Amino acid sequence: MKFRLEVTDKLSKARAGEIETDHGTIKTPIFMPVGTAGSVKAVHQRELREDINAQIILGNTYHLYLRPGLNTLEQAGGLHKFNGWDRPILTDSGGYQVYSLTEVRKIKEEGVTFRSHIDGSKHLFTPEAAIDIQRTIGADIMMAFDECTPYPCEYNYARKSMEMTHRWLKRCCERFDTTEAKYGYSQTLFPIVQGSVYKDLRMKSAEVIASFGREGNAIGGLSVGEPAEEMYAMTELVCNILPHDRPRYLMGVGTPVNILENIALGVDMFDCVMPTRNARNGMLFTRNGIINIRNEKWKNDFSPIDPESDLFSDLQYSKAYLRHLVTAKEILGAQIASIHNLHFYLWLVTQAREKIISGEFYEWKNKMIKQLSQRL
Amino acid sequence: MKFRLEVTDKLSKARAGEIETDHGTIKTPIFMPVGTAGSVKAVHQRELREDINAQIILGNTYHLYLRPGLNTLEQAGGLHKFNGWDRPILTDSGGYQVYSLTEVRKIKEEGVTFRSHIDGSKHLFTPEAAIDIQRTIGADIMMAFDECTPYPCEYNYARKSMEMTHRWLKRCCERFDTTEAKYGYSQTLFPIVQGSVYKDLRMKSAEVIASFGREGNAIGGLSVGEPAEEMYAMTELVCNILPHDRPRYLMGVGTPVNILENIALGVDMFDCVMPTRNARNGMLFTRNGIINIRNEKWKNDFSPIDPESDLFSDLQYSKAYLRHLVTAKEILGAQIASIHNLHFYLWLVTQAREKIISGEFYEWKNKMIKQLSQRL
Repeated sequence: MKFRLEVTDKLSKARAGEIETDHGTIKTPIFMPVGTAGSVKAVHQRELREDINAQIILGNTYHLYLRPGLNTLEQAGGLHKFNGWDRPILTDSGGYQVYSLTEVRKIKEEGVTFRSHIDGSKHLFTPEAAIDIQRTIGADIMMAFDECTPYPCEYNYARKSMEMTHRWLKRCCERFDTTEAKYGYSQTLFPIVQGSVYKDLRMKSAEVIASFGREGNAIGGLSVGEPAEEMYAMTELVCNILPHDRPRYLMGVGTPVNILENIALGVDMFDCVMPTRNARNGMLFTRNGIINIRNEKWKNDFSPIDPESDLFSDLQYSKAYLRHLVTAKEILGAQIASIHNLHFYLWLVTQAREKIISGEFYEWKNKMIKQLSQRL
Repeated sequence: MKFRLEVTDKLSKARAGEIETDHGTIKTPIFMPVGTAGSVKAVHQRELREDINAQIILGNTYHLYLRPGLNTLEQAGGLHKFNGWDRPILTDSGGYQVYSLTEVRKIKEEGVTFRSHIDGSKHLFTPEAAIDIQRTIGADIMMAFDECTPYPCEYNYARKSMEMTHRWLKRCCERFDTTEAKYGYSQTLFPIVQGSVYKDLRMKSAEVIASFGREGNAIGGLSVGEPAEEMYAMTELVCNILPHDRPRYLMGVGTPVNILENIALGVDMFDCVMPTRNARNGMLFTRNGIINIRNEKWKNDFSPIDPESDLFSDLQYSKAYLRHLVTAKEILGAQIASIHNLHFYLWLVTQAREKIISGEFYEWKNKMIKQLSQRL
C-alpha cells in the first residue's frame, strides 16, 4: 500500500491524498460503505461500482468468520472473489462486534472468548487469530485486534485496556510480519489508537501507535456515545501525533457533520453503518438536511427524492413513492433509501476532496454543516 | 387496446401475438411480474426495464387501495407516475386479496365488506367500486370484480358464485362503459371466467364471458390448490370457447411447467407471485431445473448462479455467495434471487414465443418440461 499526500488545507488540517492498493486507488478523504457479511445491505455490487462509485468497502471479520466461515472464504479465493467486489476491501478485527453483539464474553490477556450470536457456539479471538482470519478473508487493509472501550469508561479501565491493546498490537504485528498474503496481492495492517476520552491516554496511545511505523493508522473507541465535542477533541490530539505521511482512519464515524468536522482535523478515512441502517428506517441524508421519509408531510410530495442528485433512483422515484414503500415495508424502499444515503455520503467526501484541492474547504465546510443538520 | 394474433402453432393451440396499449406493445405469450403494492418486490424499475425487459407488470387493487390510497394515486396522476413505471400495467379487481387476506368479510349481491389486514378498518368493494378504483389507479388493463372460489368447492356454491360473478360483470361493464379514463390514455376491461373445476360451469361461464365481447378475457379460480391436470382440463375447455382474436389471461399461474402447458392450450398472458416469493425463500428456477440455494451442496459451489443466463447478477455472483446471503437473511439475497427468477420466467415465455413463430414449440415444450421439473 502506498499513500500520497496531495494537498493540505491552509485553514484547517484537512488533507487530500491517494491510497494505492493492488485492487486500485482510493482518493481521500473517503467514506467506506459497510458490507457487514460480505454485502452492503440492499445494494448490488454493480450499483456500488457504477452508480455511487464506492472506492473501497468494509467487511466485518466477526460476521464473515461465523458465516460463510473461513473454509468457504478460503476455497473461494478470498472475499473479493466470493462477493464479486474487485476494488479494495478493509476488514475490522472482529473485536468491536464481539463486544457489542455477544452476550457471554471474557476478555483476558490471551484474547477474548465469546459465544456466537447465531448458534451460541464458543470461540476464541486472539491477536494472532484476528490476523490469520483477515489473511484468509483477504482484505487489502486489515485492522489490529484491540479492545474498544465503552462510553463512559473509568480512567483506570481505559488505561489498562489501552495498554493491553498496545501489547496485542505487538502480537498482531509479529503475526502479520511473519505470515504471507494468501491470494497474490498485498495486504497491510493498521494499528488502532485507543484511550477513551482521556487526553493523556489518547496522546500516549497515539505515540505508541505511531512508533510501530505501519503504513496507515486508525483511531478507535470514538462515536460510542460521547458528545461530538469530546470526539473532535480526541481526534485533534491524535491527528497531531500520528504521522502526516500515512492515512488516518477514524473508525465507525459518523453523521455527515461528524465526517466534515473530522476531515477538518486531518482524518482521511471513515466508515459507518448509519447511511444504510438509518435508510432502512426511512432517514435520508441530503445536502439540505435530514428527511424522515415516514413523515406525513411527504405523503403527496411527488418531487424526486433528491432533484440535485445525479443518482438514477433519486431522480426516478418521488418522495411520496419512497414514503409509501418504507411505510409498507417493501424491500425496494430499503434499496432506494440505502443507495441514496451511500451516494450522498460519497458525494460529500468527494466534494470535500475537491474543496480541499481548490482551497475552499474551510468556508464550504462551515456552510455545509449548517445545512446538513437541518430537519426537512 | 389492440390484439394482433401473429401465429398459431400447428401441433398445439399455442399462439404468438401482440397487444398494443398506450404504454407500449406487449409480445405474447407473456409473463407479468407482480408488483403488489406498486413495487415488484426487491427489484428496481430500472432492472425490470433494462435487465429483464419486463413488458407489463401487475398491481394489486386491494393493496394499492389501502396503501398508498386513492387520494395519493390520483394526485400522482396514476400508478405509472407514482412508481415510475412507464410501460403497461394490469390491475386485478381486488377480489382475490379480499378473499385470501382478510378475516372478516361478507359476500353479498351488492359486493364484499371486509376489514383491512393493516388496520382493521371496514371497507366495501362493489363491482362499481372496483372499476372506479382501477380508473384511479390508471391500469392499462383492468379486471372485472369476481368471486374466486376456493378448491375444493361444492358444485352448488360454484354455480351460484359463478352466476353472481356474471351479474357483477354486467355491473362492471356498465360502470366501465359510462366512465372515462382519467389520465389521457386508454384503459380496457377484461372479464373473468369462473366455475371451479366443473366442466359444465366452466363452459357456461366461458360462453357468457365471450358474449360480452370485451377486448380480452381472463380465466380465474385456477391454481388455487387443484391438481395440475384439472387446471389444464379447464383451460383447454375455456380456450376453445373464448374468442381467438382476443388475448387470454390465466390468472395467478404458475410454475414454469404450468406456464408452458397452458401456452400450449392457447393462453397468452400469465402472472404469479411464485418467482419473487419463492426467490425470497431461496428457490431458483433455471432451464435445467429447480435449485434450493439453501441446500448445503451449494456451500462451496463458486460457479455463477446461472452460467447460461445473460443477466448481470447471474454471471457476477456465485451460488455459494447467494446461498450465504439467503442463509444470513441479507436483503441482497432476495434481490439476486428475485431478479434471477423473473429473468428466467421472461426468458421462458420469450423462448416459447420464438419457438411458436419458428414452428418448433411443441417439441421444445415437451423437452423443457422434463428439464424444468428436475431438482438440481
